[in-house]
Amino acid sequence: MKPSFTLKELSRLLDVPVQGDDSIRIDGLATLKRAGPGSLSFLTNPRYAHQLAECRASALILHPDQASSVTVPCLLSRAPYVTYARASQLFFSLASDSADQPQEALVHASAVVDVSASLGKGVSVGPQAVIESGAVIGDGCRIGAGSVIGRDSHIGNEVVIYPNVTLYHGVSVGDRCIIHAGTVIGADGFGFAFDGQRSVKIAQLGSVRIAADVEIGAGSCVDRGALDDTVIEEGVKIDNQVQIGHNCVVGAHTVICGCSALAGSTRVGRYCVIGGGVGITGHLSICDKVTVSAMSMVTQSINKPGLYSSGTLLQESGQWKRNAVTLGKLSELSRRVKKLEQVLPNEPHEPGN
Amino acid sequence: MKPSFTLKELSRLLDVPVQGDDSIRIDGLATLKRAGPGSLSFLTNPRYAHQLAECRASALILHPDQASSVTVPCLLSRAPYVTYARASQLFFSLASDSADQPQEALVHASAVVDVSASLGKGVSVGPQAVIESGAVIGDGCRIGAGSVIGRDSHIGNEVVIYPNVTLYHGVSVGDRCIIHAGTVIGADGFGFAFDGQRSVKIAQLGSVRIAADVEIGAGSCVDRGALDDTVIEEGVKIDNQVQIGHNCVVGAHTVICGCSALAGSTRVGRYCVIGGGVGITGHLSICDKVTVSAMSMVTQSINKPGLYSSGTLLQESGQWKRNAVTLGKLSELSRRVKKLEQVLPNEPHEPGN
Amino acid sequence: MKPSFTLKELSRLLDVPVQGDDSIRIDGLATLKRAGPGSLSFLTNPRYAHQLAECRASALILHPDQASSVTVPCLLSRAPYVTYARASQLFFSLASDSADQPQEALVHASAVVDVSASLGKGVSVGPQAVIESGAVIGDGCRIGAGSVIGRDSHIGNEVVIYPNVTLYHGVSVGDRCIIHAGTVIGADGFGFAFDGQRSVKIAQLGSVRIAADVEIGAGSCVDRGALDDTVIEEGVKIDNQVQIGHNCVVGAHTVICGCSALAGSTRVGRYCVIGGGVGITGHLSICDKVTVSAMSMVTQSINKPGLYSSGTLLQESGQWKRNAVTLGKLSELSRRVKKLEQVLPNEPHEPGN
Repeated sequence: MKPSFTLKELSRLLDVPVQGDDSIRIDGLATLKRAGPGSLSFLTNPRYAHQLAECRASALILHPDQASSVTVPCLLSRAPYVTYARASQLFFSLASDSADQPQEALVHASAVVDVSASLGKGVSVGPQAVIESGAVIGDGCRIGAGSVIGRDSHIGNEVVIYPNVTLYHGVSVGDRCIIHAGTVIGADGFGFAFDGQRSVKIAQLGSVRIAADVEIGAGSCVDRGALDDTVIEEGVKIDNQVQIGHNCVVGAHTVICGCSALAGSTRVGRYCVIGGGVGITGHLSICDKVTVSAMSMVTQSINKPGLYSSGTLLQESGQWKRNAVTLGKLSELSRRVKKLEQVLPNEPHEPGN
Repeated sequence: MKPSFTLKELSRLLDVPVQGDDSIRIDGLATLKRAGPGSLSFLTNPRYAHQLAECRASALILHPDQASSVTVPCLLSRAPYVTYARASQLFFSLASDSADQPQEALVHASAVVDVSASLGKGVSVGPQAVIESGAVIGDGCRIGAGSVIGRDSHIGNEVVIYPNVTLYHGVSVGDRCIIHAGTVIGADGFGFAFDGQRSVKIAQLGSVRIAADVEIGAGSCVDRGALDDTVIEEGVKIDNQVQIGHNCVVGAHTVICGCSALAGSTRVGRYCVIGGGVGITGHLSICDKVTVSAMSMVTQSINKPGLYSSGTLLQESGQWKRNAVTLGKLSELSRRVKKLEQVLPNEPHEPGN
Repeated sequence: MKPSFTLKELSRLLDVPVQGDDSIRIDGLATLKRAGPGSLSFLTNPRYAHQLAECRASALILHPDQASSVTVPCLLSRAPYVTYARASQLFFSLASDSADQPQEALVHASAVVDVSASLGKGVSVGPQAVIESGAVIGDGCRIGAGSVIGRDSHIGNEVVIYPNVTLYHGVSVGDRCIIHAGTVIGADGFGFAFDGQRSVKIAQLGSVRIAADVEIGAGSCVDRGALDDTVIEEGVKIDNQVQIGHNCVVGAHTVICGCSALAGSTRVGRYCVIGGGVGITGHLSICDKVTVSAMSMVTQSINKPGLYSSGTLLQESGQWKRNAVTLGKLSELSRRVKKLEQVLPNEPHEPGN
């Protein structure tokens, strides 16, 4: 039978009041468009308010201001999106209880755990995983199949590491972090000294320190520091295929979207939002509460909170080409305009202009 | 001895006629430049026609219009590039027969296959691979070493999964798909609700549905949906290090080149070609038969088939810098030009201009 | 006890003279700012010279020209950064001796090594690693946990392969190469022939040849060639998440920073520096000693050594938007300026302008 909650139970678990019949059973979440009997839906974007009329959900998460017009039972929340997020976690853990929690031995027989490694209470280690010497893993952690936890790394409590993740030696990961599949933490930073003939490797003697409540997506990399550590502060959320160079510091609660990259020794402040595909060059400092739009190129430090962008807009290719070629002569064009201005009166003759 | 075909055999297998001696043996494919005795070469780009003269290949794949001038035996094809592609598959399978097909037990002794998983006929599971509970794997699939197939995932027939791939729970993959090493399918989409203090995780309750004949390169990621599924339609080809956000839909037979990214909930049509390093922001809709050139930034929906671009052309850095700085004042420059126009006659005085 | 060297030992090992007391013990490296008793620091960038005064290091690596003013013992080097790099390697190997070198059997009991594979002297194979049939691995190599070495691949001496790396069949890797976690070498190049209905796969029959002293970061991909091989020449250094397309040739001692991509069949010369996030389209030729700045788009061959750039500078988003929109009409703006010039005298009237 499908896991479910009554609206009354959800009201208590989510700490929001109910409007209407709280005895109905809810067995899942759905968008306004897809919702059917048994589902709980939500309105987080006024743009979709028109969909409320034909929505077939059994209940809704709504802002009190929107609830008056609605006849189906509602959970009233001043932050419907946050309430939806919390609800999604309830249905996730419900679904997971039967599946993600290992039924058999917590440490799979095929896993290799070094005798000198220390595992906390209720730690599960998946098939083919490797825990190297001296690693310390806190209570309730889940180490995915095929993941490798390097020697002397230190993992907090309730950390979830998905399959085929690699942690190099000496990396530390805080409580409740989530690291997705294929991600690599603690590989060597990219440092070489050119001796005139060849690149001489600079051994990367620092490590990586990841604070609590950080999530890192799939296929991302956080390099270890050259001498000091690379630092990811608490609550940072990093998407897939993000690259964090050696000795970067990412401030608490900053969000970095997919395919972005921070070159070495750059500091990003707290509560920043770095869009997808953004590149930030090395040794820069970005202050708190800066938002950088997708695919921007950041080559200078930012000292003022705000919204920043770069890049050129998409065009039909023929037109783009003409403009791109002209752009190659832009400073000259500017000089030509200046010259024209010098031979002309500053103000138009026509009255009213 | 090296595997080989007679030209007659190739003619039959590739369903194209021979011009000249069909008894000669072909033991491999080569470019016009590198071809030697025993090799089959091809002309797919007229730009290289001049190389035909000194080409040492034993046979050629040519368009009938080009074959008249040629003395070596030929396979005549109105689509030489497609015929070359089909020929390459013949030589590949010939080479693979002895190697890729497992000699020993189909399921390697070191693999971990959950008792509740179901494997079709002739499935090979590589060393250290993991097949979790409830997974269903069709006939003739090959699961690479160290790959992890999540619980309740469903894989069709004749699917090839290379080593160290991760499929999360509940992912479905259609017949004849190919997934290259290190790729991650079904990791959580990047969804959080900010409560004013921190990012609250939105559990990703959807999954990923990949249709038949899809190929996905190495180190790519396709995230699972928040509520509905992320969908890759039949025949889509995705290169390396591509990121597909949650709830995206990629239309049938679309090609996405390396390092491109689709942010969440974007829909790309059928028969599109997305160049390398392209970024497409979220919640957009791209119609069928759109081609986007490499490294373009797509921030608006596209409703008309065609070729689109963005980005700026490479220049010597000094010149680039001058233009880039001027670009920062471009709208002002435009206003200045407008002003100049207002104080001037619209037409040049000089006759003939 | 912490590993350490006397300054005299370091002088001999690094082949640089000492100024001052060479009997002091050095137990680590540190930046001028973080250095304390027992640490060796260095000045490689004059910009930090002011930090020498309050630096608490026990010794310094300095250029002779800077050493006169300094009272602490010094290692005098005409290339302080290179000397620092060499010193970092000494401290790394010191730290590693006890840890990285396997204590137990060189080939871990859980590793799967095909009977037909050949391992050199002192090769260590980590837990859950897989060495396929016909692979040849040179002396002193270290194969990381969970890595897969494909059949008939050939690895030189003293190669370090970190965990969860995948080498496809027939790949060759030169002496002293380092390949970081999650990287994939030899996956199929992205080649298809469109038959009007669907993309027909072009089997990738070439391989990858990596010369000696190459380092490749984490999460990178080097695709195998279609017919000929993809080639990485000696001393090339490749950062994380770099994509090298099929049939590319990367010249000796070139450096490619993170998240850059080379599309198929492009040739990059020797001693080039490709910044981070750079995209180079296919079939181009870049000559020796070219530097391309971060996030540049390269769509044409480069025949002259030098520094090249593209991209637009970051701005406050409102201002960026205005300029980006004007850029969309730039060629028209240029025509309007030309028109203005036609109706005007070429030289300003005002004397002195």
